[in-house]
Amino acid sequence: MSPSPAPGTAMLVEGVFAREARRIAQAISAAESGNVPDLLRGIYPRTGRARVLGLTGPPGAGKSTLALRVAQVFRRRGQTVGIVAVDPSSPFTGGAILGDRIRMGEIYTDPGVFIRSMATRGAMGGLARATSDAVDILDAAGFDVVLVETVGVGQDEVDIVKTAETVAVVLVPGLGDDIQAIKAGILEIADVFVVNKADREGADRTAAELAMMLDLAPSRTWRPPIVRTVAPRGEGVEAVVDAMASHGRSLHASPEGGLRSARRARSRLLALLEERFHRTIESRAPEPDGFEDAVERVCRRSEDPYSAAARLFERLVREPAVERA
Amino acid sequence: MSPSPAPGTAMLVEGVFAREARRIAQAISAAESGNVPDLLRGIYPRTGRARVLGLTGPPGAGKSTLALRVAQVFRRRGQTVGIVAVDPSSPFTGGAILGDRIRMGEIYTDPGVFIRSMATRGAMGGLARATSDAVDILDAAGFDVVLVETVGVGQDEVDIVKTAETVAVVLVPGLGDDIQAIKAGILEIADVFVVNKADREGADRTAAELAMMLDLAPSRTWRPPIVRTVAPRGEGVEAVVDAMASHGRSLHASPEGGLRSARRARSRLLALLEERFHRTIESRAPEPDGFEDAVERVCRRSEDPYSAAARLFERLVREPAVERA
Repeated sequence: MSPSPAPGTAMLVEGVFAREARRIAQAISAAESGNVPDLLRGIYPRTGRARVLGLTGPPGAGKSTLALRVAQVFRRRGQTVGIVAVDPSSPFTGGAILGDRIRMGEIYTDPGVFIRSMATRGAMGGLARATSDAVDILDAAGFDVVLVETVGVGQDEVDIVKTAETVAVVLVPGLGDDIQAIKAGILEIADVFVVNKADREGADRTAAELAMMLDLAPSRTWRPPIVRTVAPRGEGVEAVVDAMASHGRSLHASPEGGLRSARRARSRLLALLEERFHRTIESRAPEPDGFEDAVERVCRRSEDPYSAAARLFERLVREPAVERA
Repeated sequence: MSPSPAPGTAMLVEGVFAREARRIAQAISAAESGNVPDLLRGIYPRTGRARVLGLTGPPGAGKSTLALRVAQVFRRRGQTVGIVAVDPSSPFTGGAILGDRIRMGEIYTDPGVFIRSMATRGAMGGLARATSDAVDILDAAGFDVVLVETVGVGQDEVDIVKTAETVAVVLVPGLGDDIQAIKAGILEIADVFVVNKADREGADRTAAELAMMLDLAPSRTWRPPIVRTVAPRGEGVEAVVDAMASHGRSLHASPEGGLRSARRARSRLLALLEERFHRTIESRAPEPDGFEDAVERVCRRSEDPYSAAARLFERLVREPAVERA
């Protein structure tokens, strides 16, 4: 049905299947710089086998170090791990993880671990799409576990991590009330709570507050466990991995597992449709009476944005068949 | 051209023009809960007069207290202020600003100040749209200054604050390297830098680092000044207001002013088009061979998401006239 992939694409697909780090990196870069339907069509049949885990929380919660430690535990258990960091404050992105690089040097040279940060700037709706693509690429490359790290503040990032099968929310004691206010929003997406930097003052209080919140929340089949960690020393990290694994088992024993797959497919399709919609608007922007003309009229206030959008939309989007008849 | 507004809408429009706090709040709530074209059409002719300022930065930077202090300065200078907080970690949203409420009680009862926080959860593309609507409503209500507070982490929030004429980026010393990594991303959107909590250790270093970054950046007509503040004591806040005012003057003396208006109109129209697109997808999702069927096929992996999205998109979006011919 689709045109045969370009030679570059075939080479990338093969390289991904062979788990060649260079090809995987190139494939993710390609996905990052634009829509790559042929590549994704090529690898898609081999996806759906990895366990996709999400790690989110406020900046400064130590998510990246925890991700590395979690990866180490999986490695010791004989599993391969891909890490995708979608977090402008991530040291993977920002480049400030030097201490960890020294302390955990071996993980960076282990072929059973692949670490990749996603460019979060200027992605304009494409970030969610590119992240899903990166997860698929690592999945098709045969990594047993794919770990998605996002900063749990923006709606985008929350949407992204929600597509994981199991989400761990990482908090730390003493980040201040205004940061902890974020808790309310991420409570509903947490399958596991991690109180990181648990050797700090206030760890008991943070854990107790979380437990209280869970007591007050409507009861669900799965009650998110609260795990304390000191990530740089690896303390508690085994327990995090175990908690995520038992959530996975609970998921597959209930309808929730199917619902999450559907949710992931749904947000995937939405992201792709959105991106196409943007491209269409852009490509047709200069048309007479098109987007750019509308921008000008709205600027001059000779037309309100709602009327302009209604007019533009009518030209862009088809009426449903039933209304056309 | 458009149907006459429902009585409720007319009442809201009148109430907004009369700057009745209750009507303004109702109008913003209406915009928050959905697309309100008639309301916005009604008020649009009176918009475009307010000065729209943005305040952004990481959680814990003290943006809300600074916003209140900035509002106080404007009040002392005889100007009215509307504040829109788009920040899940904002005390306006999270409700933890008790100390400020006590310290600055009068600002909450001053009819020349209107404070509103936006619901950031589940807005799904609608948040940018609703925020622009709120800004317009406050503008039409005759507030001289509209201050938009967002948390500068997610792409959504950055996109929102970019629509302001002048953006102040608020940082604090000692938030840790991983948080400061955000700086790289927000450097380009800052017209004014605020080093808040400047009485803390490390303030000099933070200011010096910012100055160095600015030295390294490609030179622009406007070099963002770096202002130190201790917001709870009001220190440096006059200087922030002055810096924003001189940026405003520089803006209007250069083509950049017009470019920013166009940018705002553009992101406005985009947000409206996106929201409509979502509604269309949702309303047509159950159609045979529609979105829901595609979700199922992608879940079963009988179709890859790219092919499914291409098919759905073709059904949704019209070909441009030139290609139809």
